[in-house]
Amino acid sequence: MELDLAPAGLARAVEELPLVDHHVHGAVTLDLPRTAFEEMITESDRPVPDWMTQFDSQLGFAILRHCPPVLGLDPSCAPEEYLARRARLGAAEVNRLLLGAARLGHLLVETGYRGDELLGPSGMAEACGAPADEVVRLESVAEQVAAAGCDAGAFAGRFAEALHERTRTARGLKSVAAYRCGLDFDPAPPSRAEVADAAGRWLAAGGRLSDPVLVRHLIWTGLERGLPLQLHIGLGDPDVDLRRADPLLLRGLIELAEPTGVPLLLLHCYPYQRQAGFLAQAYPNVFFDVGLAVNHTGARGAAVVAESLEVAPFAKLLYSSDAWGPAELHYLGAVLWRRAMLRVLGGFVADGEWTVGQAVRVFTMVGAENARRVYGLG
Amino acid sequence: MELDLAPAGLARAVEELPLVDHHVHGAVTLDLPRTAFEEMITESDRPVPDWMTQFDSQLGFAILRHCPPVLGLDPSCAPEEYLARRARLGAAEVNRLLLGAARLGHLLVETGYRGDELLGPSGMAEACGAPADEVVRLESVAEQVAAAGCDAGAFAGRFAEALHERTRTARGLKSVAAYRCGLDFDPAPPSRAEVADAAGRWLAAGGRLSDPVLVRHLIWTGLERGLPLQLHIGLGDPDVDLRRADPLLLRGLIELAEPTGVPLLLLHCYPYQRQAGFLAQAYPNVFFDVGLAVNHTGARGAAVVAESLEVAPFAKLLYSSDAWGPAELHYLGAVLWRRAMLRVLGGFVADGEWTVGQAVRVFTMVGAENARRVYGLG
Amino acid sequence: MELDLAPAGLARAVEELPLVDHHVHGAVTLDLPRTAFEEMITESDRPVPDWMTQFDSQLGFAILRHCPPVLGLDPSCAPEEYLARRARLGAAEVNRLLLGAARLGHLLVETGYRGDELLGPSGMAEACGAPADEVVRLESVAEQVAAAGCDAGAFAGRFAEALHERTRTARGLKSVAAYRCGLDFDPAPPSRAEVADAAGRWLAAGGRLSDPVLVRHLIWTGLERGLPLQLHIGLGDPDVDLRRADPLLLRGLIELAEPTGVPLLLLHCYPYQRQAGFLAQAYPNVFFDVGLAVNHTGARGAAVVAESLEVAPFAKLLYSSDAWGPAELHYLGAVLWRRAMLRVLGGFVADGEWTVGQAVRVFTMVGAENARRVYGLG
Repeated sequence: MELDLAPAGLARAVEELPLVDHHVHGAVTLDLPRTAFEEMITESDRPVPDWMTQFDSQLGFAILRHCPPVLGLDPSCAPEEYLARRARLGAAEVNRLLLGAARLGHLLVETGYRGDELLGPSGMAEACGAPADEVVRLESVAEQVAAAGCDAGAFAGRFAEALHERTRTARGLKSVAAYRCGLDFDPAPPSRAEVADAAGRWLAAGGRLSDPVLVRHLIWTGLERGLPLQLHIGLGDPDVDLRRADPLLLRGLIELAEPTGVPLLLLHCYPYQRQAGFLAQAYPNVFFDVGLAVNHTGARGAAVVAESLEVAPFAKLLYSSDAWGPAELHYLGAVLWRRAMLRVLGGFVADGEWTVGQAVRVFTMVGAENARRVYGLG
Repeated sequence: MELDLAPAGLARAVEELPLVDHHVHGAVTLDLPRTAFEEMITESDRPVPDWMTQFDSQLGFAILRHCPPVLGLDPSCAPEEYLARRARLGAAEVNRLLLGAARLGHLLVETGYRGDELLGPSGMAEACGAPADEVVRLESVAEQVAAAGCDAGAFAGRFAEALHERTRTARGLKSVAAYRCGLDFDPAPPSRAEVADAAGRWLAAGGRLSDPVLVRHLIWTGLERGLPLQLHIGLGDPDVDLRRADPLLLRGLIELAEPTGVPLLLLHCYPYQRQAGFLAQAYPNVFFDVGLAVNHTGARGAAVVAESLEVAPFAKLLYSSDAWGPAELHYLGAVLWRRAMLRVLGGFVADGEWTVGQAVRVFTMVGAENARRVYGLG
Repeated sequence: MELDLAPAGLARAVEELPLVDHHVHGAVTLDLPRTAFEEMITESDRPVPDWMTQFDSQLGFAILRHCPPVLGLDPSCAPEEYLARRARLGAAEVNRLLLGAARLGHLLVETGYRGDELLGPSGMAEACGAPADEVVRLESVAEQVAAAGCDAGAFAGRFAEALHERTRTARGLKSVAAYRCGLDFDPAPPSRAEVADAAGRWLAAGGRLSDPVLVRHLIWTGLERGLPLQLHIGLGDPDVDLRRADPLLLRGLIELAEPTGVPLLLLHCYPYQRQAGFLAQAYPNVFFDVGLAVNHTGARGAAVVAESLEVAPFAKLLYSSDAWGPAELHYLGAVLWRRAMLRVLGGFVADGEWTVGQAVRVFTMVGAENARRVYGLG
């Protein structure tokens, strides 16, 4: 539906609610030349071919549509003009403007990917004017344990200690199993001997942690730790085999983990958002979002959000931006999701299927309340 | 499109056509306390967590939107008010009101799942004011044969006899292979020796029938029986592994069954409705519906129905509600599907792509004629 | 959106741009009785059952909506009236009218499937009034080598020579691996010994080429040849196992082929257009279209096109009709795609997300410029 036809009460609620971004990374602290900026607005890790620009994409058009006004320019200006203004203002001011404009109520910042180039949770909290807590990536903790020197037999114990230490104040854990070995792993916890064996191979060979035995061990140690566990699902960079990032592959793990009571949060899920919705209906411990997909589908975000509002109970869906790097992504995540939800929920009202009150309530649940309950944010 | 903008001729046809619900279960005969009611409006078999209510879902909102007026209340009243009225009226009156309001022309009632808690075909016929015939679940017949006592070598013969006996007046058969072993089974009929062997293991072990050899044997015996064969596809309760409920897995069976001339009816199919449409275009013996998915997607039902109207010839699509239990589901199935079809077909007309006459004809085919032809309902 | 509400500047661009149809077959040169016509407007290779007509489908309705005016009849006339006029005009005149009305700027004609019943590239160029170049099907060349007599050890060399000879003026290559062995083949080039061994088995057994070793060998020889390589993906006739036609299965080949710089063009992709879009974002060498799916989804074409405009950069999407046989399909491919793009891009503008200028530019890129760049059409 057209936004200016949306019910006023819903439009106001959508505008005013401070969102809880339950899965986000830091904003980049460096100034970005055009090439670097373009490389950060795609999930591809390849150089941008000289016959194209990443601005010619839904995400590129969305940046040019929504971000220039925050920096004092007209909407849909040329990329050159936008980047020139961005450079003139400097990264710190750009971050302050865009992060502030996202109007967030709370952030859960995942720090495990190139975190040293980015604002940390406290920097994000300051720039956003909202509390920020940390989500700790399991694989990063394990790799730090390995980097610090550890023998195979000691690995499991050392990892458990390090995880405990590292998550004293954290609100959640994250696994990138989808990147490391695909989600078609044996869901059962591996035995201590298997873990020691796999750890021995890994510590000898070096490199990143990708042995499925170790990935499973990290997840099960995480489940024992008891914090809500985020799992990367669906689209990402070319490192992901999208076939092996289908959330339905997690059925075994979901069932085995159910008695622990730990919430499992399926992130992004595109193009498997309907499959994620099915799991969220079937299993009390499954939650999901369409995070990253909203930014990357831009003007099509409402279509993706709508598919996330099909079979899952409304208590099981959350908001996230999964923004990483340019603060445009943190801002856009919020803007595009607000607009998408207003279109979709406003459409249900216009169709005579929902009341305005129901639409406001669902927006509030998904935009903030569900995350506050799951992570205990108060 | 907005319903009051739909072409009048189409709106009238949609309103007036008595639908053939080709796959439905009985309405529950007991009064339902709130917990029981909530547990029957989700496919989850888990207790409803105390931090949520199943009314906060597309199906819950749809119930509150459309059912209160049938019971004399305002639309979108509170769940408490609705359930209080429901309790005051009593199950028999609620069933009479809601089932009558569905305006059905014929029902095919599948009796194989907890049938003793539900109205049977004759009770449904009476409450709906329309003829009702039976669809017999293959697995239930086999389990009755086992329960009656049977040895392994006699199982195949006893099952064939029982099936013949049990389906004297039935209009169709149903298989829940998707629940029992997944659809990735060897499509060929098993040998007599394999069946005896598998029957021996099953009869000794007890429990429900789930050995793929036996599932296949039931299907092939069903194909010999010659009645149209319904197959559960796609979403269902947590007992289903959704990855193994993809209709594309049935390609081998479809091709092997083609010479028998038996219609294969793929039920629900969500989120694989496009895959089902492809099979329905490719193979003359394949038909499908989006049954259960329309109720569970509520305000999004038009999106699902629209995807079912893509590549399949219009002679291959049927209507069903797959309602089970609360008569709200039988009524809503019809209401939501009517509204979804009116939106989608009316949209094709408004777009200048279809004529009103074409839209009326497709509605009539899918809503009644296709089922009458496939099942020989006259 | 309704077409007459689309921005005038966009509507004009959509109307006026001569499209590059980068994957099309010839129009049939024979007059078509009704049965033959109906069999050519479905992907099914089965006889049309006597209880249905292929005109009762999205494609059938689209033909009746859009083609009669080109032949001097009113839109949405009866099939009988349309086919009578078609017969009276004769195939040559029908082809001239419909192909001319498609308003194409360039055609890439794939000649490998029943090419002797169809206009070749020069006949298509004449009828369309636009240049037409050839795309050569790898499997057909190999089968011609076999038919000419060849021993196993000589096969690889003879195929390379024949391919070189056959593609002197061709603009692209095509593989139908999806039909022959599914896309889940080992992506690495087979060894010379493996090829000779597989060729020996095939040449002795006869029949069409379907051994995965040979399919891979053809693809790798094609990659060495260096022309853009088209790959059949997703829906097609019943010969395709749709599960094994998922573009995500090509991830290994895409990564191995990346250093060659050869563009890989994923054709049709339905229902996997979102998966194709993900690959097109991730990998610089991946391009795609929704060709065949637009004709077969008719009034739903905009929904499919919209899904193709989600995560892929706009430089990675192309137009094709994949028309084969009746010239209605060549014409409709262009008409339906123009209408779908106008609806989708016009909708982005109406939603306030894109400018008209951006919409025109994306239409021009996808409709012509991307293909001109990828195939070097000037």
